[in-house]
Amino acid sequence: MLITRKVEFSASHICRSPQFSDEENTRIFGLAANPHGHGHNYVVEVSLVGDPDPVTGMVLDLKELKEILTREIVEPYDHRFLNYEVPPFDRVIPTTENIARDIWQRLDPRLTGERHKLHSVRVWETPDLYVDYFGEPLCSA
Amino acid sequence: MLITRKVEFSASHICRSPQFSDEENTRIFGLAANPHGHGHNYVVEVSLVGDPDPVTGMVLDLKELKEILTREIVEPYDHRFLNYEVPPFDRVIPTTENIARDIWQRLDPRLTGERHKLHSVRVWETPDLYVDYFGEPLCSA
Amino acid sequence: MLITRKVEFSASHICRSPQFSDEENTRIFGLAANPHGHGHNYVVEVSLVGDPDPVTGMVLDLKELKEILTREIVEPYDHRFLNYEVPPFDRVIPTTENIARDIWQRLDPRLTGERHKLHSVRVWETPDLYVDYFGEPLCSA
Amino acid sequence: MLITRKVEFSASHICRSPQFSDEENTRIFGLAANPHGHGHNYVVEVSLVGDPDPVTGMVLDLKELKEILTREIVEPYDHRFLNYEVPPFDRVIPTTENIARDIWQRLDPRLTGERHKLHSVRVWETPDLYVDYFGEPLCSA
Amino acid sequence: MLITRKVEFSASHICRSPQFSDEENTRIFGLAANPHGHGHNYVVEVSLVGDPDPVTGMVLDLKELKEILTREIVEPYDHRFLNYEVPPFDRVIPTTENIARDIWQRLDPRLTGERHKLHSVRVWETPDLYVDYFGEPLCSA
Amino acid sequence: MLITRKVEFSASHICRSPQFSDEENTRIFGLAANPHGHGHNYVVEVSLVGDPDPVTGMVLDLKELKEILTREIVEPYDHRFLNYEVPPFDRVIPTTENIARDIWQRLDPRLTGERHKLHSVRVWETPDLYVDYFGEPLCSA
Repeated sequence: MLITRKVEFSASHICRSPQFSDEENTRIFGLAANPHGHGHNYVVEVSLVGDPDPVTGMVLDLKELKEILTREIVEPYDHRFLNYEVPPFDRVIPTTENIARDIWQRLDPRLTGERHKLHSVRVWETPDLYVDYFGEPLCSA
Repeated sequence: MLITRKVEFSASHICRSPQFSDEENTRIFGLAANPHGHGHNYVVEVSLVGDPDPVTGMVLDLKELKEILTREIVEPYDHRFLNYEVPPFDRVIPTTENIARDIWQRLDPRLTGERHKLHSVRVWETPDLYVDYFGEPLCSA
Repeated sequence: MLITRKVEFSASHICRSPQFSDEENTRIFGLAANPHGHGHNYVVEVSLVGDPDPVTGMVLDLKELKEILTREIVEPYDHRFLNYEVPPFDRVIPTTENIARDIWQRLDPRLTGERHKLHSVRVWETPDLYVDYFGEPLCSA
Repeated sequence: MLITRKVEFSASHICRSPQFSDEENTRIFGLAANPHGHGHNYVVEVSLVGDPDPVTGMVLDLKELKEILTREIVEPYDHRFLNYEVPPFDRVIPTTENIARDIWQRLDPRLTGERHKLHSVRVWETPDLYVDYFGEPLCSA
Repeated sequence: MLITRKVEFSASHICRSPQFSDEENTRIFGLAANPHGHGHNYVVEVSLVGDPDPVTGMVLDLKELKEILTREIVEPYDHRFLNYEVPPFDRVIPTTENIARDIWQRLDPRLTGERHKLHSVRVWETPDLYVDYFGEPLCSA
Repeated sequence: MLITRKVEFSASHICRSPQFSDEENTRIFGLAANPHGHGHNYVVEVSLVGDPDPVTGMVLDLKELKEILTREIVEPYDHRFLNYEVPPFDRVIPTTENIARDIWQRLDPRLTGERHKLHSVRVWETPDLYVDYFGEPLCSA
């Protein structure tokens, strides 16, 4: 069984790399390469897999889940410029893919319990684009 | 291939157990432990896995699916106080997890056909919280 | 200029009057007359009319607005059974119409400032039904 | 990791087969058998599985993805009567199931890259009904 | 006070006039001039203005409202090709503007009661485009 | 009759004034005063009032409307940092209120036709907060 909770944050980002020229950055990242940055209302869906407790009927304490998501995601990310204020985005490009992985890494150690563990992180950058990350090791890492 | 249909119902519930003291119920269930109850507009997504009929191009008769969902879910659940009017919630706490399992058990025998069977039940308690159940046996059952 | 903020609460209600017989209550209120009650995820949109401050560019302090909506609406209404726990619904039937008027009466004295005042209250009972109230005196009151 | 992008198109269709009588078509397809046709705002979610490039942090070029989806889906399908203007629906009934398979077949050869490939196609016919297709071979084909 | 209820229907239409050449039709109506037609999931919001009954707390009987909307809008419009099956669209171009006016004319005589009357009709053609009609006389009529 | 079209853009902004100290900026603007900035997916609804042409049934050419909204709003605002790249936000604080007024001023001269004129601009900063501007002269201007 999966249980999923949504949270939201508003943030700015720039998608460009110092390894590339201006032309290359624009070719690769398009408008998102604008060095001034731009922003989004990000929506995050965090899914846990678990087995409900036979007495309470709950996979985990939802009040505690909400506190963890607020402390680990909303507080560090909300109303921030990711490249300047939220590591590792001082050195990692804050694409939606990398944001999903960073959120996984922040949550995974906090969301492993007796009856449940983190299953996936979905990050919506806009209502038309989202990424799902399942914590898989990356070939390229 | 999966085919998914949404239905909705409005219901009340209380999340508390007679096994626990008032303090324990509040610690475990938070505001949902209020003994007067509270309510939600629940949204249910029922997914079937199947293979479309080569002539009709349909996994199953959608009119019949709608009738089954209306008869097995909407009619018993809609405009009801789950704890008082919808078994097994007289003895099982109507958490979203348990509602998803009950809906699975109501639908599974009605939704097994030649070319399809029930794949999963998603229940949204609010627009920010949902559960997916795949009919797996429960360790604790 | 109008500025509108949404808040949500989950609550139970019963729509029936002791003035009517069971048959009359069902005829008038339909399934909502169920004496056990049922519930909804209510969404409230509160609109203020005002003129932005020429220096700050804001009609009012949005942090303060959020605190008022939380204190005056969400805290008293959320996770409650309206008929039993939220006056005046011990004696007034909690239809969407009456909920919108009660929210207006709770907010109007708190939301009158130098540059703004309450303009309207929209209450969604379900995604398919909503009421707008503009504070007009009621012919029948 | 999955990355998903939505596109939309508006189209007409008729669900009926010349193999069946009028009565059979209505029994099988219901109102959708109306020989004049009717229409929908279809929403398509295309998901790719891949591994982000270690330098750019992207699974694939999103600008290029958008161009492919526009050229391969939106342009041929949007503002069209599927049965009359969009092969194979001159001979295949344009059920949601068959539309999902056709979109898969149009996209699969265009969306296979070094680091990614097509994972699934979700087609929403209405906000209450959708199909997911994963490219599996069909028993009946 | 306003009370608003949503209904939906799926239909096909063609926006072109026999008074114009093919070129003019395309210039005026764009892709919507396609003579085969295309379709939408239309959403209609019907708003009534009224004063709640002091005893029931309701502006009008919502069950009756739903029946009227089903009989007067959904049944004639749903799963239809408007130009061929739904007068006056055999002679009036079924633009969103004209659909809103036709819905007003169908509903206005049915929705005038002691305590309420029709206030406005909103028609969404897509999630990005809608029309509001208030029953005003048209200058050009 | 009103006709409304939505467009979207993603942008960054900072809400703070050089007239105020750091403490005052935080007290007035809260998290939005962060000098690095943050961002949103803004949604804009532009409403025109008009009378449909008796022959075409349209208030105005929707293709032309879309081009104007793209040229006047999306192109200058999308993927931009408003304070640094979009006048007048180099000297005017980009609150939602001021964004709505700037959009009105950009559109009003382009959207006055024989049969229609601009009626209102709604700007959503998040799904929970929006402003409506009707072009009224401002007391404080």
